[in-house]
Amino acid sequence: MSDAPQWLGYGSAVLTTSSFFPQALKTIRTNKTEAISLPMYVLFSLGVSGWALYGLLRQDWPVFWANVVTLPAILAVLDRKLRAVLNGSGRQ
Amino acid sequence: MSDAPQWLGYGSAVLTTSSFFPQALKTIRTNKTEAISLPMYVLFSLGVSGWALYGLLRQDWPVFWANVVTLPAILAVLDRKLRAVLNGSGRQ
Repeated sequence: MSDAPQWLGYGSAVLTTSSFFPQALKTIRTNKTEAISLPMYVLFSLGVSGWALYGLLRQDWPVFWANVVTLPAILAVLDRKLRAVLNGSGRQ
Repeated sequence: MSDAPQWLGYGSAVLTTSSFFPQALKTIRTNKTEAISLPMYVLFSLGVSGWALYGLLRQDWPVFWANVVTLPAILAVLDRKLRAVLNGSGRQ
């Protein structure tokens, strides 16, 4: 039962990971970050990093890859938001 | 190595799951769904359901609970968006 649902994990990974890219592309393209919640993205970045490490330690590759691939999209949004906050142009 | 990082999984679960509740609460409170992407929430609901089933089949309880707890928050947003679309008041 341990290896059987690998396809289920990768299928779920494609669905959940692809959900995050439109937001990242929109933020990179428009550079508008007022509507982005900084605390939420900080928590989310830490959580996704934790899941990636969890997948690695358990050698659960669908969990590992789902979170490793999602992380750059989240960090790109977080990066833009942090720059805006440091420049004084982004409201939290 | 298989059971050791359970605390890491539950810690990550708290971080990622808690990221979704502010959006759900906002949508339920305001009932405004114009800015919500229907296709994204459909894909995301399917993905989170898939992860919950994956966690169940692998008996990976941090993965199972993280997704089971997140699902109602996502379905609440999806429900409001679908009602708005069916009423002709929600743009996709």
